[in-house]
Amino acid sequence: MKNSAAKAKEVAPQSDPVKKMGDLEKQIGELKTQLEALSKSSPENKIALILFSGELDKALASFVIATGAAAMGMDVVMFFTFWGTPILRDKAKKVAGKDFMGKMFGAILPKGISGVKLSKMNMAGMGTAMMKSLMKKKNVASLEQMLELAAEMGVRIFICEMSMDLMGFKREEMIEYPNLTFCGVAKFLEEAQNSKVQLFI
Amino acid sequence: MKNSAAKAKEVAPQSDPVKKMGDLEKQIGELKTQLEALSKSSPENKIALILFSGELDKALASFVIATGAAAMGMDVVMFFTFWGTPILRDKAKKVAGKDFMGKMFGAILPKGISGVKLSKMNMAGMGTAMMKSLMKKKNVASLEQMLELAAEMGVRIFICEMSMDLMGFKREEMIEYPNLTFCGVAKFLEEAQNSKVQLFI
Amino acid sequence: MKNSAAKAKEVAPQSDPVKKMGDLEKQIGELKTQLEALSKSSPENKIALILFSGELDKALASFVIATGAAAMGMDVVMFFTFWGTPILRDKAKKVAGKDFMGKMFGAILPKGISGVKLSKMNMAGMGTAMMKSLMKKKNVASLEQMLELAAEMGVRIFICEMSMDLMGFKREEMIEYPNLTFCGVAKFLEEAQNSKVQLFI
Repeated sequence: MKNSAAKAKEVAPQSDPVKKMGDLEKQIGELKTQLEALSKSSPENKIALILFSGELDKALASFVIATGAAAMGMDVVMFFTFWGTPILRDKAKKVAGKDFMGKMFGAILPKGISGVKLSKMNMAGMGTAMMKSLMKKKNVASLEQMLELAAEMGVRIFICEMSMDLMGFKREEMIEYPNLTFCGVAKFLEEAQNSKVQLFI
Repeated sequence: MKNSAAKAKEVAPQSDPVKKMGDLEKQIGELKTQLEALSKSSPENKIALILFSGELDKALASFVIATGAAAMGMDVVMFFTFWGTPILRDKAKKVAGKDFMGKMFGAILPKGISGVKLSKMNMAGMGTAMMKSLMKKKNVASLEQMLELAAEMGVRIFICEMSMDLMGFKREEMIEYPNLTFCGVAKFLEEAQNSKVQLFI
Repeated sequence: MKNSAAKAKEVAPQSDPVKKMGDLEKQIGELKTQLEALSKSSPENKIALILFSGELDKALASFVIATGAAAMGMDVVMFFTFWGTPILRDKAKKVAGKDFMGKMFGAILPKGISGVKLSKMNMAGMGTAMMKSLMKKKNVASLEQMLELAAEMGVRIFICEMSMDLMGFKREEMIEYPNLTFCGVAKFLEEAQNSKVQLFI
């Protein structure tokens, strides 16, 4: 810092005070412009999560992080893609007009948040059932409750359109959610670009 | 930049020099305040890793990244959650008073860093044994050595209390480590918020 | 902001104008130095992806993100490590002189981008074949096409040398790619440190 200040003094010694003041003014203007630009490009207090996985444990982790971040006042964006997409299906909704592959994906993949399974120790559903009963016993909110909480806290949810298209899901079979957007990867990147934290789960 | 400087000149032309100097002073003060605020909100030279997975390959990746970052002078934070939690159990320690589920998780999950297995090609332990022998042959440090190295390098480790609670692990059965903290997701987010790099592994 | 400006006024009231101007100059110099330092440490418009997984779905996700980010004008760095490494093998190339373990890894792991399988529902290759046919039908680019696109768009690819060494892969058996670098974790961290987005896939 000393060097820079010293240099500034050298550059304009004993010059005309009015001219000098104009020069200082100009320098301040430049600093303002640079500071504004830097401020604009610096990230917002935001977290962007990609939920690629469709398992209970990873979905749980992403909702714990999402609601925790929202509780801390962060803006939260969740992007559901690939195996994460079927988590947001509404099991009460039925849609017609699917082709063979769409029907097959529809039948094999979990229908909504209550059908999600553990990535390990699922043991034909026993492990998943035990984990759910444990979560209840230990007062950990269920995925359904966390989704509700996320909605109340203003967590924004994006669903990847390419994944929906690949798996033959239609918009009409997805859940009702206050901040739901169907979008592509560009929209997610826009959000991730100016967020402080990004996680691929 | 030119526009801004020109504008600054327009705003206060031929004004009283003393008043003008006061004005410049005020502008400099404002710039300082803005710069301080921006500087405070900009990330530290820090990396925050979440180790969610409990497999040898992913644990290896996270420790390679952690110790590599520490060697580069970065502040390193590792957050062990879910299947990552049992990696930090001390196999020499025994605890009493666990309930049925706690005992079951205790028996099924790997006990400490030496019990960790590959996510792929485990082949009933053969793949994992081969990988470990390969790592030795190729002079890649073992997980045990990396944990020691991490401790020496000041890598801070956080263990997720919710995961411990779910799996019935007790603090007394975890390893001794110089920078070990038991905490919740909020603590992790605090660290992640002002770190340059965050990874969910 | 008011406080700071008021404080600045208190510090130097009714002082010699020339001295005061020199003082303002010094302050501006200091602000410049601080702003430069902050600007240098702020991240570039860059995304750093680690592809640790070797599955079709995750490789697909990483290339969709990589090419999407490149299309938005971001600098893109992909770091292939562990199970992601064999994706970049060239199936037309043969290398001699591998030891037993190297030959085994070479035989078991997918040889290049066309041998990559789904992480779920692979069903002895049927699921993977169906997904590939679906991608074609739905006009989603294949991995081979995405790799070509990535090359055209200037996406830079790094291959983890430790992984290659562990799995016995040689440089001569990897694909030709315009921006290919063989490196260690330090190089990746250097890139990740000043990127806006980092994902571990």
